[in-house]
Amino acid sequence: MPGLSRRDMLHASAAAATAAMASPARAAGRDESSPADKVAPPPAVTQILARRIAEAKYGDIPAAVRKEAVRALLNWTGCAIGGSHHETIDIAVSAISPFAGPGQASLLGRPQRLDIISAAFVNGVSSHVFDFDDTHLKTIIHPAGPVASAILAYSEYAPVSGQDFVNALVLGIETECRLGNAVYPEHYAQGWHITGTCGVFGAAAAMGKLLGLDEKRMAHALGLAATQQTGLKIMFGSMTKSFHPGRAAQNGMLAALLAAKGFTSSDRALEGKDGWGGAVSPKRKWSEVLDDWGTRYETALNTYKPFACGIVIHPAIDGIIQLRNGHGLTPDQIAGIKLDVHPLVLSLTGKTEPQTGLEGKFSVYHAVAVALTEGKAGEKQFSGRAVRDPALAALRRKVEAAADPAIGEDQARITVTLKDGRVLKTFVEHALGSTINPMSDGALAAKFTDLAEGILPPDRIQRVAGLCWRVEELANAAEIATAAAGVA
Amino acid sequence: MPGLSRRDMLHASAAAATAAMASPARAAGRDESSPADKVAPPPAVTQILARRIAEAKYGDIPAAVRKEAVRALLNWTGCAIGGSHHETIDIAVSAISPFAGPGQASLLGRPQRLDIISAAFVNGVSSHVFDFDDTHLKTIIHPAGPVASAILAYSEYAPVSGQDFVNALVLGIETECRLGNAVYPEHYAQGWHITGTCGVFGAAAAMGKLLGLDEKRMAHALGLAATQQTGLKIMFGSMTKSFHPGRAAQNGMLAALLAAKGFTSSDRALEGKDGWGGAVSPKRKWSEVLDDWGTRYETALNTYKPFACGIVIHPAIDGIIQLRNGHGLTPDQIAGIKLDVHPLVLSLTGKTEPQTGLEGKFSVYHAVAVALTEGKAGEKQFSGRAVRDPALAALRRKVEAAADPAIGEDQARITVTLKDGRVLKTFVEHALGSTINPMSDGALAAKFTDLAEGILPPDRIQRVAGLCWRVEELANAAEIATAAAGVA
Repeated sequence: MPGLSRRDMLHASAAAATAAMASPARAAGRDESSPADKVAPPPAVTQILARRIAEAKYGDIPAAVRKEAVRALLNWTGCAIGGSHHETIDIAVSAISPFAGPGQASLLGRPQRLDIISAAFVNGVSSHVFDFDDTHLKTIIHPAGPVASAILAYSEYAPVSGQDFVNALVLGIETECRLGNAVYPEHYAQGWHITGTCGVFGAAAAMGKLLGLDEKRMAHALGLAATQQTGLKIMFGSMTKSFHPGRAAQNGMLAALLAAKGFTSSDRALEGKDGWGGAVSPKRKWSEVLDDWGTRYETALNTYKPFACGIVIHPAIDGIIQLRNGHGLTPDQIAGIKLDVHPLVLSLTGKTEPQTGLEGKFSVYHAVAVALTEGKAGEKQFSGRAVRDPALAALRRKVEAAADPAIGEDQARITVTLKDGRVLKTFVEHALGSTINPMSDGALAAKFTDLAEGILPPDRIQRVAGLCWRVEELANAAEIATAAAGVA
Repeated sequence: MPGLSRRDMLHASAAAATAAMASPARAAGRDESSPADKVAPPPAVTQILARRIAEAKYGDIPAAVRKEAVRALLNWTGCAIGGSHHETIDIAVSAISPFAGPGQASLLGRPQRLDIISAAFVNGVSSHVFDFDDTHLKTIIHPAGPVASAILAYSEYAPVSGQDFVNALVLGIETECRLGNAVYPEHYAQGWHITGTCGVFGAAAAMGKLLGLDEKRMAHALGLAATQQTGLKIMFGSMTKSFHPGRAAQNGMLAALLAAKGFTSSDRALEGKDGWGGAVSPKRKWSEVLDDWGTRYETALNTYKPFACGIVIHPAIDGIIQLRNGHGLTPDQIAGIKLDVHPLVLSLTGKTEPQTGLEGKFSVYHAVAVALTEGKAGEKQFSGRAVRDPALAALRRKVEAAADPAIGEDQARITVTLKDGRVLKTFVEHALGSTINPMSDGALAAKFTDLAEGILPPDRIQRVAGLCWRVEELANAAEIATAAAGVA
């Protein structure tokens, strides 16, 4: 009975337990959307998950998982600093500042301080505004944003040791990604931006852990998270996309703060009738939440983007840069570029004529044109200037893309036809930044520096990076926040 | 082409416009969930709605509708004052206070002041905590909470004339109830608590109106509302149920504040692919949003509860009180009580053994037992004491309820069998408080006084009621808030 301890079984309903005894495959492991659902109720997902979070210990986390959490923290911190002066953040800060509370917590990259709930929001937005943050490829969740934004802000209000911080970060990522696994891809296909809708659980779990919630209050925190769903995919290409992880951080934090004071919600919020699962997804494979707890870590699968745009177009960018560098290609040589890509590439990033930098991130055509021209796809390559450049616009109109269901999400086939008649081809098996072809520590450090340059002084950049790498040794993780705050 | 002006048509997509010309029934009027949806895209609901809100004028509202808005305001204010010392509010205020902003706005019934976003939340929660607020019977939305909580708090930050206040209140109620009509009952059946999920649009529309948003920014406010869905039905019976209208008020306010500063979202957030409609409901009958704007007012259909519990059990309570008073019944005479009720009564209020006052409101068995015993069903009848009273518990176990799809939501058939063998029957055609059998102004005023007694001094109660009745004459609606604030 993988993933279900005897104690868990005692907490599951009798009917579910009986079904589990009779057939392990029909226990927590079954897909609740199957007809079997009519026979036996789902397991007590909310309570079991709450108990596991409440009981989890830093010392139980494998070293490789802790290391990945540290890498996620470094990457998130860099993204939040880098995005902190985007127009989206200026507007958000100016809209909420008149109503915000005392200056308890830092805004990364900005000098102003706000209350921890507002700071969690702003840092969550800025960490996603470049679409450059981490990705859990199984669900396309960006895991760090909702979780780290909440707990780092909180650490400035009540000290959090580096080890407790990493424990909470891992628990938050496990919670949101396991719930994501349970409902992906149907939930996503229904229109939800999963980073927001599942991220709120990560923030609630991590904050609940820091607040020391017992099983019951942790379940209520998860319930309060379940009833605060932020994130529609139609917002992609607008400022509201990065609003989602910010609001998820803030909502999850509020959920845990309320539950800590005894605010009640449902202890079957996830799996119960009229609960989260049924409202948001036709698929509810609860085994993804419960099985292999403590042995399977979604945190270990986290990946980081070498390119400043949606992960789905990274294989195409990786491939075109390989061809460019391998053959010394320049734009004037190009007759046409043909891409064969995973179907999500077109549905998510199919904008043929982007008008803003943000829209450029949702255009595989622009991404490939600019990567071929400049040899990279960082934040500058997705500026308004780049998107409106006539030469780049001419080149992107030579790019054709076709969906091929046989091509994986981290793959792409690229065919470049030159004016001289030559045809160059490449097939990207695993894009740089994927689980199998990860960014090295050195590449992550370089990305961090690139992002923070021009916002923090050079010595401060190195100091923040150093604090992130050795977060587990810190007496209070808040050191990272105060060091990463903007200089007035 | 009811409800679609020529200007509207220009803004709808060409395909939708063509379909509309060819067949009025297939224009905005069609149900998007029908196969016809595959042929023509839905109308530009978000933009059309945004423009109508932006253009709406106080002077265009019929007198009867304005009157109903005033009655809604009085009822909401009484509920918010009455609920203000419930444990739910104590916990919420204690959880958020350390992080709240400057004391810009009153908490009704409490002396503390908070920033307007936090005050909107708290007043929204307290107005629903007794389940005694208003009801739009077509959708079971409680309309005033999300809207009034936001705009009254805002009026303390920037003055709002009474006429502007009523205009915003009506627009908010129209927006949330029309969207509710578009998705009810499928959206509700999917697990969503519609007062939260649609209420956020009401708050955003009303706040957007007060902030003077143009069509584009109003559309973005609606988009930011769409992506903040709070409300799962599984929370019924816990504190999180009243969290929903509070959060809807707050989220809608935030949506409008962000949009006012230029924060962008989608201008097809409601109807577009990967937008709100598809994510939350299999039914999207957009004609309910667009048709008859300015002639059909959902505000005019608002109703008020004579009993402090879910509207669905009011017919049973009304009927049992009629039998009690007509025959001088006492509990010791009762052998059994049989209820034939609308099916929702059992699915929403079928708790047979409630343990708390809040759970008692979700128990038709307790409600009928206490109403027969005490002749009323006010807040005291749903206290923890009442629910745990052994005599009432014994009587409620004599109550049987059966669902009958032939019985309307405001109807009930009651059969009381006495120990002496007599059988008494009644059929409630339209429960007191329904659209056809509304509470009078006098009954509403008495309810207001009952709710505020013990919280505000008697002269203050009369002053607040007076301000509500003549809100349209006020230079600033904030007078109501400051008068209704608790005395330190």
